[in-house]
Amino acid sequence: MPDSYLAGLEVLASVGIDQDDFRNRAAEVAPEFVRLAIGFTYGEIFNRPGLDLKVRMLVAIAAGTATGTAPGQLREHVQAALRLGWSEREIIEVMIQTAAHSGVPAALTALTDCHDLLAVRTRDSESCYDESSETGQA
Amino acid sequence: MPDSYLAGLEVLASVGIDQDDFRNRAAEVAPEFVRLAIGFTYGEIFNRPGLDLKVRMLVAIAAGTATGTAPGQLREHVQAALRLGWSEREIIEVMIQTAAHSGVPAALTALTDCHDLLAVRTRDSESCYDESSETGQA
Amino acid sequence: MPDSYLAGLEVLASVGIDQDDFRNRAAEVAPEFVRLAIGFTYGEIFNRPGLDLKVRMLVAIAAGTATGTAPGQLREHVQAALRLGWSEREIIEVMIQTAAHSGVPAALTALTDCHDLLAVRTRDSESCYDESSETGQA
Amino acid sequence: MPDSYLAGLEVLASVGIDQDDFRNRAAEVAPEFVRLAIGFTYGEIFNRPGLDLKVRMLVAIAAGTATGTAPGQLREHVQAALRLGWSEREIIEVMIQTAAHSGVPAALTALTDCHDLLAVRTRDSESCYDESSETGQA
Amino acid sequence: MPDSYLAGLEVLASVGIDQDDFRNRAAEVAPEFVRLAIGFTYGEIFNRPGLDLKVRMLVAIAAGTATGTAPGQLREHVQAALRLGWSEREIIEVMIQTAAHSGVPAALTALTDCHDLLAVRTRDSESCYDESSETGQA
Amino acid sequence: MPDSYLAGLEVLASVGIDQDDFRNRAAEVAPEFVRLAIGFTYGEIFNRPGLDLKVRMLVAIAAGTATGTAPGQLREHVQAALRLGWSEREIIEVMIQTAAHSGVPAALTALTDCHDLLAVRTRDSESCYDESSETGQA
Repeated sequence: MPDSYLAGLEVLASVGIDQDDFRNRAAEVAPEFVRLAIGFTYGEIFNRPGLDLKVRMLVAIAAGTATGTAPGQLREHVQAALRLGWSEREIIEVMIQTAAHSGVPAALTALTDCHDLLAVRTRDSESCYDESSETGQA
Repeated sequence: MPDSYLAGLEVLASVGIDQDDFRNRAAEVAPEFVRLAIGFTYGEIFNRPGLDLKVRMLVAIAAGTATGTAPGQLREHVQAALRLGWSEREIIEVMIQTAAHSGVPAALTALTDCHDLLAVRTRDSESCYDESSETGQA
Repeated sequence: MPDSYLAGLEVLASVGIDQDDFRNRAAEVAPEFVRLAIGFTYGEIFNRPGLDLKVRMLVAIAAGTATGTAPGQLREHVQAALRLGWSEREIIEVMIQTAAHSGVPAALTALTDCHDLLAVRTRDSESCYDESSETGQA
Repeated sequence: MPDSYLAGLEVLASVGIDQDDFRNRAAEVAPEFVRLAIGFTYGEIFNRPGLDLKVRMLVAIAAGTATGTAPGQLREHVQAALRLGWSEREIIEVMIQTAAHSGVPAALTALTDCHDLLAVRTRDSESCYDESSETGQA
Repeated sequence: MPDSYLAGLEVLASVGIDQDDFRNRAAEVAPEFVRLAIGFTYGEIFNRPGLDLKVRMLVAIAAGTATGTAPGQLREHVQAALRLGWSEREIIEVMIQTAAHSGVPAALTALTDCHDLLAVRTRDSESCYDESSETGQA
Repeated sequence: MPDSYLAGLEVLASVGIDQDDFRNRAAEVAPEFVRLAIGFTYGEIFNRPGLDLKVRMLVAIAAGTATGTAPGQLREHVQAALRLGWSEREIIEVMIQTAAHSGVPAALTALTDCHDLLAVRTRDSESCYDESSETGQA
């Protein structure tokens, strides 16, 4: 288990998730469980061979949007996905895709909860969400 | 709406989902809604630009595993993902990944529900799940 | 509590739900809880003033479709709704409506689970779900 | 799709839901999806024949209370239901009814989340929830 | 029903749940339902023979952590469990245990939502969650 | 990880859960994940200090009844709880208790799914659920 935890910390660091935020409050009451959770989630599951870490992060966003009960973790995974090279547009499309499987409201909630993370960069450069180009597709 | 429906049928055909199975019972009581659902899910959502159809199918499997309430549709998406070129191993890893986000039991249920789809081909060739290679990773 | 139970039995009888089916297996291991559940659900909640029993049965079908975890009770409520004077078409539309709020798959599952209840009578008379009339609306 | 969207805007306007609130944050990152969602939910589903728009709004409240994951949309539907002529009492009873099907806590949460919408008007006139009349019924 | 309500108030008082907090907002719009809910939950269910009230409170915490949709009620049950003699550590372990059955994120959310209730007393005395002793177990 | 797995097998053996049933189908497609799941669930979580294994098994039943998505695992936990010394009556009361927190239908479903496990022994001896004694309490 200590090995899983260390492996998990490495994965967290590699995707830019600040584990101190993650542990903050839960770790104050259950420090060992937070280490176990990091070991299981990031050291064991995210670290498995057979599927790219980058693709796994999309799966995490899809599952998080579908269940909708951990907006804080969803935000972490969105930030990690951006660092791993997914564009805001691709992440947005993952949330939209889940609307077909777990309902439109869950997708809208995820888009709203992560609004600042998904809109920030598009403001820096030219927006890729201008209505004209999208309407052209519809 | 008719255009969305036709676009949805094309997507369904392209991924090898036999839409007659899909419509069978629900369409007997609500034929127009099934067309609307196909139009929305496959004609509008799956058909959007910005994310590859192949990646969208993984997102569908992740969301379906996480919610766990539509095993029949999950099986369809697994079959479609295989046709789109994902390996059994990659699909299995998607289900395993969701265990970190929506619980171990949901992942085990999805793996069990799709057992025959995910094990069939590995029997034809050499199994890629022999214990030795996996244990080597642990 | 005994009064609630008796009131619940009356409501169950008035909507044609055979309470012996309801109690059958659960009542063998928890007879008093089944009486409490009948008292609470049918004697207290369904029996409240302020909303028609007939409308309450639609609410029960909407909630049951949305949560999707008690198909046996959903079927009971569909049978009760038919007895209370709702048409198959109206009940089908309730299930379709929930697709907007809790997802398309949940609606398709409810339509499939109650397929025989919702299709039976339309076979006796002329089908009200012929494609031509519905297509005209789309 | 554009036709569904325009039809959806008409339904939204007719029930007094200010669509600018609805689109606000989600539409900034996914404008076309918000149009698709409005088209599907309000243009296609709410607009279907076979069940009254007024009854459909109760179904939306029942499903929203049962799933409990989109309080913002639930509030919109409560406001729309009031405009369509349902009384606060009837809407409250819909939430209470779902307690029998998806649990007491979900009903209490919905009542609390929509507290101001359901209590406001009763303060203007004479309260219809004074304890004496209700206790008389119990 | 009035008897159930009075019995429920007694249970609430015995476990130190301030029922005025509980009723506050929901009771303003649905006073009789809040009484019914107190009667059902505390007067009937919590009050049943066959399982200790103290053990029932752990069951309430387990179910509340697993569903994760009523953080206010979960906090009440944590406070009640502390009064009934469970230690912070035992309550924390109940939340951790549910991670195996309904997912790690739900457990982390419950630990965070009840952070102040579970950490307060350990600060007064010597912390029982110092890293050294826990690490020794791992 | 291998240590967690071995510790998990020991816990499984000690509570009489036949791990071959558990691994059967899921392990054919994902053998290492099943070992990881056993290691996490039984080797790490169930094995933690701070709460009795016997109480943890009740927590597992409460969480499994509340979520309702893994009836096979719920049955395993009921069998384990019986071996650990809980009576059928106490297990039934755990399921009934969750009705207050996650809804009456979920409790009725769990009671029905585990009907044979909870009724079997009471038939051997004198039934402890005869109506007379229970009615006396109501």
